[in-house]
Amino acid sequence: MKIMENFLIARQGSGSACRSIYGGFVKWCMGKNDDGSDSMAVQLVDESHWDDLVIIIAVVSLKQKETSSTSGMRDTVETSPLLQYRAQTVVPGRILKMEEAIKKRDFESFARLTCADSNQFHAVCLDTSPPIFYMNDTSHRIISLVEKWNHSEGTPQVAYTFDAGPNAVLIARNRKTATLLLQRLLYCFPPQENDLDSYMVGDKSILSDAGVQSVADIEALPQPPEMKTPNQKFKGDVSYFICSRPGAGPKVLTDESHTLIDSATGLAKGV
Amino acid sequence: MKIMENFLIARQGSGSACRSIYGGFVKWCMGKNDDGSDSMAVQLVDESHWDDLVIIIAVVSLKQKETSSTSGMRDTVETSPLLQYRAQTVVPGRILKMEEAIKKRDFESFARLTCADSNQFHAVCLDTSPPIFYMNDTSHRIISLVEKWNHSEGTPQVAYTFDAGPNAVLIARNRKTATLLLQRLLYCFPPQENDLDSYMVGDKSILSDAGVQSVADIEALPQPPEMKTPNQKFKGDVSYFICSRPGAGPKVLTDESHTLIDSATGLAKGV
Repeated sequence: MKIMENFLIARQGSGSACRSIYGGFVKWCMGKNDDGSDSMAVQLVDESHWDDLVIIIAVVSLKQKETSSTSGMRDTVETSPLLQYRAQTVVPGRILKMEEAIKKRDFESFARLTCADSNQFHAVCLDTSPPIFYMNDTSHRIISLVEKWNHSEGTPQVAYTFDAGPNAVLIARNRKTATLLLQRLLYCFPPQENDLDSYMVGDKSILSDAGVQSVADIEALPQPPEMKTPNQKFKGDVSYFICSRPGAGPKVLTDESHTLIDSATGLAKGV
Repeated sequence: MKIMENFLIARQGSGSACRSIYGGFVKWCMGKNDDGSDSMAVQLVDESHWDDLVIIIAVVSLKQKETSSTSGMRDTVETSPLLQYRAQTVVPGRILKMEEAIKKRDFESFARLTCADSNQFHAVCLDTSPPIFYMNDTSHRIISLVEKWNHSEGTPQVAYTFDAGPNAVLIARNRKTATLLLQRLLYCFPPQENDLDSYMVGDKSILSDAGVQSVADIEALPQPPEMKTPNQKFKGDVSYFICSRPGAGPKVLTDESHTLIDSATGLAKGV
C-alpha cells in the first residue's frame, strides 16, 4: 500500500516519475481509463538481471542551450500529424521487442530499439507546431560519435537516448566498452577547466580504467580510428560526465542526515 | 521538345532540379512508373501571379557545420517508419491545400503549410537510421525567431523552409515584412567582419529600407519587442544573407560572357 501511495504522489509531479518507484527495468503502462487512473509502472526485471550495463551521462553545457521551449507534449499531441501513427503503430511493436531484448539480455536489439525510439521521439517534437528542439549541436555530435563507432564495430557497443533536453544518456554493453566510450568522449569534449575531479561525477574509477589521471592524459589521447576528420574537439561543450549503472529502487533512509528534504518543514534542505 | 530535353538532363543531376526548368511556382509530380520516367515538374502559376513575396536566405556559417552526412534520402526510405505515413497520408492532402493557397495568394495557409512540411521533412530525416541532421543550432534559432514573431503578430508574417542543409529560406508576405524580418535577423546575427557589402547579396536595396547603411547601424538596432531574453546575439553564425524574389525560369543567354560554362570546353569557367 505504501508503494501505491508513493506511486500516485510521483505521478502527480511528473508522469514518468512513477517509473522511479522501482529499480532495474521498469515499464510505464498507458492504461485505458480517460482519467489515467489505471496508468501505472511495473517492474520487468530488477537491477541484478542485467548487471553488465554501464551508463555514462554527458551533461551538455548550458551555454549553448536554445531558449527553452514552453511548449510540451501537449502541443505535440495537438499538432503533430506523425505522433498518432507513432503511438498507435510503431510504439506497441517496439515495446514488445524491447521487453524481449531485456529478458534475453540481447544488447544488439536493445541498442537498436533505444536509439531508434529516442530519435523518433525527437522527430515528433520537431513535427510539432511550433517545433520543439530538445537536442542541440553537441547532442548531434555525440550521436554521430556513437553511430560511427557502432558502425565501424559492425555491431552496437553503445546505445544513446535523450529525454526532454540536450543531455545524452549512453548505455554501454559492459565496463570495457564504457571505458572505450569514455576515451572517445573525452577526446572530443575535453574539459574547459583544468579540474578533472569535477568533470567526472559518480563512479570516478572509470577514469583510471581509461588511463586518464589528469587533463594532460586527455590531451594525449589518440584519435579514435573510426574518426576520419582530425582534431574534431569541442572543449567546453560538455559540462561534466556522470558514470553510473542501472540502480535499485528508492530506499527508506533511517539517517536523517542523508535525506534531501528537511522532515520538519517538508522543504528541500539548504536551498 | 527543347524543354523536355533540358528537363531530363536536369533530373539526372538531381531529382528536384527539374523544378527549376520553369519559373514561378512549380509542382514536382511523382508519377506512377517504377523507372520514374513519368515523374516530372509542372508550372502551377508563373512568377507574376504572386509578386508581393520577398525571399531572404540566411546562409549559415560552415564553421558550425556538423560532419556532413553521407546518408541520404535512400536511407530514410529504407529505415524511417514515419516516412511511409508521411508520404501516403500527410503529403497528398498538404499538396492540394498548398495549390489552393498559391492560387488564392492565401499567405497564412501558405506559411503554415510551408513551415509544417519543412519541419516534417527534417523529422523523418531524424527518424532515419543512422539519423540525419541537416539543421544546426543556428537553423533552430532562426526558426524560433520567426515562430515568436509570427505568434506575437497573431498571423504568419514569414514562412521558413530548410532543404538538405542548415541554410534558412525565409519567405516574407511583402517587402515591408521582409524589411522587418531583416532587422530581426541582423539584430540576432550581426556580421563577423565589418564589411556590410558582402553580408547582403542580391537585392541590396533592402538594407536601406531597413535603415542600415553600416555595421554601426546594425549595432544600434533596438531589440525586437517579442524577444524576451536580452542580447541574444550570435555574431558570425550567419555567413551572409541573400535577398531575392520568386523568379522566372531559365533564359537562353546570347552573350557568351554571361554564361558560367565555357562553350568550347563544356567546363565551368574560371575554376
